[in-house]
Amino acid sequence: MIKDLEQLFDDLWPICRSITGDGLRQSFKLLQEVAPYRLTEVPSGTKVFDWEVPREWNIHQAYILDPEGKRICDFKVNNLHVVNYSCPITCEMSLEQLIPHLHYLENQPEIIPYITSYYQDNWGFCLSHNQFKSLREGLYQVVIASSLEKGSLTYGDLILKGASEQEILLTSYLCHPSMAINELSGPLVLSFLYRELNKIKNRKFTYRFVLAPETIGHIAYIDQHHQILKKNVVAGYVITCVGHDGKFVYKKSRLGDKTVDQITEHYLKFSAKTFEARPFTTGGSDERQYCSPGIDLPVGSLMRTPYKEYAEYHTSADNKAIISFDALQETVEAYQDLVKCIELNQTYIRTNPHCEVQLGKRGLYDNIGAWTKRNDFRSNLLNFLAFCDGNLSLLEISELSQTFILDYTAVIEACLEHDLIKLT
Amino acid sequence: MIKDLEQLFDDLWPICRSITGDGLRQSFKLLQEVAPYRLTEVPSGTKVFDWEVPREWNIHQAYILDPEGKRICDFKVNNLHVVNYSCPITCEMSLEQLIPHLHYLENQPEIIPYITSYYQDNWGFCLSHNQFKSLREGLYQVVIASSLEKGSLTYGDLILKGASEQEILLTSYLCHPSMAINELSGPLVLSFLYRELNKIKNRKFTYRFVLAPETIGHIAYIDQHHQILKKNVVAGYVITCVGHDGKFVYKKSRLGDKTVDQITEHYLKFSAKTFEARPFTTGGSDERQYCSPGIDLPVGSLMRTPYKEYAEYHTSADNKAIISFDALQETVEAYQDLVKCIELNQTYIRTNPHCEVQLGKRGLYDNIGAWTKRNDFRSNLLNFLAFCDGNLSLLEISELSQTFILDYTAVIEACLEHDLIKLT
Amino acid sequence: MIKDLEQLFDDLWPICRSITGDGLRQSFKLLQEVAPYRLTEVPSGTKVFDWEVPREWNIHQAYILDPEGKRICDFKVNNLHVVNYSCPITCEMSLEQLIPHLHYLENQPEIIPYITSYYQDNWGFCLSHNQFKSLREGLYQVVIASSLEKGSLTYGDLILKGASEQEILLTSYLCHPSMAINELSGPLVLSFLYRELNKIKNRKFTYRFVLAPETIGHIAYIDQHHQILKKNVVAGYVITCVGHDGKFVYKKSRLGDKTVDQITEHYLKFSAKTFEARPFTTGGSDERQYCSPGIDLPVGSLMRTPYKEYAEYHTSADNKAIISFDALQETVEAYQDLVKCIELNQTYIRTNPHCEVQLGKRGLYDNIGAWTKRNDFRSNLLNFLAFCDGNLSLLEISELSQTFILDYTAVIEACLEHDLIKLT
Repeated sequence: MIKDLEQLFDDLWPICRSITGDGLRQSFKLLQEVAPYRLTEVPSGTKVFDWEVPREWNIHQAYILDPEGKRICDFKVNNLHVVNYSCPITCEMSLEQLIPHLHYLENQPEIIPYITSYYQDNWGFCLSHNQFKSLREGLYQVVIASSLEKGSLTYGDLILKGASEQEILLTSYLCHPSMAINELSGPLVLSFLYRELNKIKNRKFTYRFVLAPETIGHIAYIDQHHQILKKNVVAGYVITCVGHDGKFVYKKSRLGDKTVDQITEHYLKFSAKTFEARPFTTGGSDERQYCSPGIDLPVGSLMRTPYKEYAEYHTSADNKAIISFDALQETVEAYQDLVKCIELNQTYIRTNPHCEVQLGKRGLYDNIGAWTKRNDFRSNLLNFLAFCDGNLSLLEISELSQTFILDYTAVIEACLEHDLIKLT
Repeated sequence: MIKDLEQLFDDLWPICRSITGDGLRQSFKLLQEVAPYRLTEVPSGTKVFDWEVPREWNIHQAYILDPEGKRICDFKVNNLHVVNYSCPITCEMSLEQLIPHLHYLENQPEIIPYITSYYQDNWGFCLSHNQFKSLREGLYQVVIASSLEKGSLTYGDLILKGASEQEILLTSYLCHPSMAINELSGPLVLSFLYRELNKIKNRKFTYRFVLAPETIGHIAYIDQHHQILKKNVVAGYVITCVGHDGKFVYKKSRLGDKTVDQITEHYLKFSAKTFEARPFTTGGSDERQYCSPGIDLPVGSLMRTPYKEYAEYHTSADNKAIISFDALQETVEAYQDLVKCIELNQTYIRTNPHCEVQLGKRGLYDNIGAWTKRNDFRSNLLNFLAFCDGNLSLLEISELSQTFILDYTAVIEACLEHDLIKLT
Repeated sequence: MIKDLEQLFDDLWPICRSITGDGLRQSFKLLQEVAPYRLTEVPSGTKVFDWEVPREWNIHQAYILDPEGKRICDFKVNNLHVVNYSCPITCEMSLEQLIPHLHYLENQPEIIPYITSYYQDNWGFCLSHNQFKSLREGLYQVVIASSLEKGSLTYGDLILKGASEQEILLTSYLCHPSMAINELSGPLVLSFLYRELNKIKNRKFTYRFVLAPETIGHIAYIDQHHQILKKNVVAGYVITCVGHDGKFVYKKSRLGDKTVDQITEHYLKFSAKTFEARPFTTGGSDERQYCSPGIDLPVGSLMRTPYKEYAEYHTSADNKAIISFDALQETVEAYQDLVKCIELNQTYIRTNPHCEVQLGKRGLYDNIGAWTKRNDFRSNLLNFLAFCDGNLSLLEISELSQTFILDYTAVIEACLEHDLIKLT
């Protein structure tokens, strides 16, 4: 998987994405080779809840000619040089006139920041502070060959049918130009996770994959699907910032009291070397939409090092040098295990709930009894049957018995096979 | 305020108060200059729940002449010398006969204890252990020029009307002779708190101030007002022992599960340098009445160093030397902030609860987006709107977001102004 | 009591008990001298929930003659030498044929393990690893003079009537051959506890004592009594492994949320030098039956060092050398106190719940008030009356006031005597 991940990363890297436009469509086309997203175009001007889909932005080139005629801040060299969603402009101006349109980071003098202006007509360039300091007085030629016209916003979704209409929602976002952790790690993990989950036979749940521009794209998606989402989604995740090695960070759903929160913490407690579970606060990603009071879905976000917590965030330094393809694969596997936990977490009731089941006559117990011969299977079997009262979910039983839920897999199979339990 | 506090303290200091009598009335008269309490007289013999208002006690003088004719234990020198509520007596007796009527503290040999005998006819003197040890055999003349006659008990109350009939109850007690922390600190803070709250425009709640003799006075007050108290009081405090610098101590309401408890702990957590919140137990003050099972009001007590936890408690050493007028003012301000928190704590619902509100088009968001430019207002605004679901109170949102409730003041104003929220 | 305990221990020690048979009946007969259990015989083949009562097992002798004709593994020397429930056999065989029927503990080479085979026809001998290693090639004579025939399983129960039909259930098990901590400590404590509780006058609850073979015996008992048990039992304990000095260990009921759990933890917190309260997990004793989902009684288990947590468990080393008769007596006393707590834990309501009761006029308060003279009775009385609201049980009041429930005994008596409270 690692080679495939890296190849697709390299293909996606140079494209200048935004919340609309051909860069976005071109990126979807590459990702469709792994996960065949169904694309939807939402026309400019469409009202989506409190928002409106903006005009479509496309850009061909952008640069500045300095007083010596040297081309600087060239969009072709790094697409972060232009403020995303800049209006078209061709103009000559003094350094003094230019400066209000220049963005840089004084405390990170060698790197280019990532700046956007989606909802207010504006233009600008981003550059390193070192380059900024080198600018001299004189006349500058500014060229931004962009267009802002009626068009549409593109989003993709994809359904993997399961036995139940109940859904697990898996989302990421696609709208950032050339940056690695935030954002390519998200769409890559989402798409390769699709490829793996597509292999599961007898899926219990239906899986919904949503890839859309951050904020406005997911608001548009929710506007058009909120009834089915509210009816069916039992658990969901926003997949973002999953390209670092190191600990997992789980951001809980709004109130942190949903099954998705309990099961993710359970999973991490028993599986992750190090992890942190933290409450929902804003300053996040699309869980802000999925968990908003009127939508209120059980959606969390399992990340590695989150947005804003690494120095390269939203700059030109968030590039291939800092992304770990091992981490991407490990994260795909973590999400696979996590949905296994969710699939396994059902509530069973014993067919004969009075006293213990006689395991011996069913071949589930050593008939020569010596306590030293206990094994995990038998111990898990006894625990499960002791707690299996039709009220406690398997997750609750796992927590009560301090046993990893997936370690009950064989126990559940054996109990079903011997008709000892049934679903409530 | 500090000068006014000290002046009133000095005026109140020499008066010999008790649970009835002219010393009590005289003290009320001085306090009425700051807070115009409405006085009520409850006749001796009136049944108030399980109790009965006792005869009225007044005292003119009290002293002992020792065998050499020297006047000792003179009430005019220190009104603690006489057991409060002593019957009148003029009598000659031996030291042996006198001793059962003398009270002192062996482990604090230089100070006079404070002793009462409200409900059993008795008389006595209090003196330092050193003075006690100096007494010689011989005949002693005992004079207590007091009266115990049908009269009345005096209490005061005061209403500050607000928009709602719902009330915040603020109480203290007045019945101790010359002692500073316990008790003058309480009536002083209560009265100056009235003066400050009277300045608030657009009070949401009605404020009820009750000043009465401890125990019997508040029992009489509750007997005569319990229906309106139970109907209207949403939060209340017993103000006592607020004259020390140092930490705040909050004693919770009976079960510690009321909003007044949560909001006071929240306030202290975010505002106080050091504080302690402790459960309700008896051995307290008038919260014993307000929180009794049949009354059960949401009343706590925000103190500084509480009764019984400082060495000078209920002795002549509880005097001006140990009271801090800075602490009194600081406590008035703390109570002012606390009621601000209670006033602000409402439950709102978003008018458009689906996904995020677009703040930019309302001028509530920088339109050039760079995460480094975040500010507290925007962060608090986003947090508030994310949690504002019509179920969570502002206090609960403040706790979930670990933000001081008063820091949401501007956010609430902005949201109301832009019609983003309404009260539930 | 200690001498009686030791005498009965010595009498019971040599008997070879099992889950059925005359050894079991003979043990009951000895125990009946302390607690007159009513015995019930359940015929072989009786279905009891998922189980069936097995054939009755009796044994006269069992031994092996080694190639030199020396008698080894002689049942008369130690009844652990024969696998409990071994089929009869008289046979000559090689060492190689014999070995699969021999049981020993490699890591405890000097002691004999305890092995059973109740539900599968089998036979075997248990011996020390040292003895096993000394066996030489040659012909061995195996003799087990046992019988496995239709008969019955014996259990005992005993009722101590109280004012209420509600019951406290006290159980232990009887089925192990010569072992001290597990099991003789259990039946001994149960029986002497009966002798003590029989002395209580005015018992509030009815007490049910059940002594039966572990697992199958209690399953049979529950099968025949589950309706009355489910109707009446308000608290119960499985008494086992109570022969060590040192800390008490309380194993909670299945979900750990019953009154029996709260009261036992409260009792231990205030009374035990050291203790541990732990969650229900399987790998226990008959609480596995009483707490099974379909029975779900509030039954815990107060032990000393539990099964499997001491090296001698289920071996010949679990003998008189390691049992403490002081610990047995101390455990009887602990259970006595515990049922006192349960008896005392009622919910009262004040007859006059408004404000404080005037204690002085009832002689319950020093009328000369000086806070330094407070005493525990008065402090407990004030606390109790402050919390006594008709909703909180005495246990809850004890926890809120951090006072041992039995310390409220005199307070409850005084309040009842003065008509200050009544039962809800």
